[in-house]
Amino acid sequence: VTAEPGAVPARRGRRRGGGDTRAEILAAARAEFAAKGYDGASVRGIARAAGVDPALVHHYFGTKEQVFVTALQLPFDPSEVVPRLVAGTPEELGERIVRFFLSVWERPDARAPFLTLLGAAMTNEPAAAMLRGFVTSTLLQRIAASLHAPDAGLRVTAAVGQLLGVGVVRYVVRVEPLASASVDEVVALVAPTVQRYLAP
Amino acid sequence: VTAEPGAVPARRGRRRGGGDTRAEILAAARAEFAAKGYDGASVRGIARAAGVDPALVHHYFGTKEQVFVTALQLPFDPSEVVPRLVAGTPEELGERIVRFFLSVWERPDARAPFLTLLGAAMTNEPAAAMLRGFVTSTLLQRIAASLHAPDAGLRVTAAVGQLLGVGVVRYVVRVEPLASASVDEVVALVAPTVQRYLAP
Repeated sequence: VTAEPGAVPARRGRRRGGGDTRAEILAAARAEFAAKGYDGASVRGIARAAGVDPALVHHYFGTKEQVFVTALQLPFDPSEVVPRLVAGTPEELGERIVRFFLSVWERPDARAPFLTLLGAAMTNEPAAAMLRGFVTSTLLQRIAASLHAPDAGLRVTAAVGQLLGVGVVRYVVRVEPLASASVDEVVALVAPTVQRYLAP
Repeated sequence: VTAEPGAVPARRGRRRGGGDTRAEILAAARAEFAAKGYDGASVRGIARAAGVDPALVHHYFGTKEQVFVTALQLPFDPSEVVPRLVAGTPEELGERIVRFFLSVWERPDARAPFLTLLGAAMTNEPAAAMLRGFVTSTLLQRIAASLHAPDAGLRVTAAVGQLLGVGVVRYVVRVEPLASASVDEVVALVAPTVQRYLAP
């Protein structure tokens, strides 16, 4: 879509880097994603808003997905994590996913930025659209592509619903006894559900 | 805890009803629940804040649970709905619960007040405490009491997580294909999960 990292970075007097350029690119990215959603935003548009060359955005942050993860301080990069989760024994896919998911949510600093975005999505359609586009492009389509069920997409969204709901009930609303259960207890209860959705 | 509906309603010059009294009681209830949480709030405290007799609060709204449902414009009264759902054939408990839950979330006017509360709970501990106390007292404890598993409480919270997460993914973030699936498709996918949690 945009220039490769190796392309000539600067032209027409755009800035070339320097102290606050990274922060300015991330601020421009947040504004661009909020205004156009994840699908509508582009590295080119973010670069234009920040007054830099697209190659510099790629150089600092990588792909659009990685810009999003960094700009919203999300706790992991799906392009790295998803291939790792779907590799490995199919019989333990549910357990791997639930354990990874809980390991992220267990850390307050890791879940906070996601909860801010999710809370905004409850009552604000642009925030919902931004979250929807990101989740669809980076998590759902990748996981569904690794499955072979005809209704893989629907099954992955049901599994995401299970994980999201357990996270909200356990870590946000903190309903007992789920809030105080051990990670192993939650895995024992929830992993078979995710396994059934993803590997029926 | 407080006076019965049949008790003498007015004393010490408190107001006896009239045009805006209902609205004033509900405003006092929202403030009381927000300040003290669901468990800490009482009909007596709400009445005191509204300057009326507790009997009048009971007369207009019923129990504390019913005051909460009305004050927060929640779409159903758990004291009426839960006994109906747990009655009936145990083999279809999961399906009854998922169908009821979807029938509520399908209506934008019914889900909006709940989403406002849930969105606030994402970043605001008093809102989370209010939601936690209400859900625990009115949904979880009632459903868990109807089950006979030693870990009934944990299983009910996992089922609530599944329902909440599907609702958020389908109706709020609106991730496809779950967002456009028919109610019957969602029931076919999710009811076995809820059934497994509640009737293992």
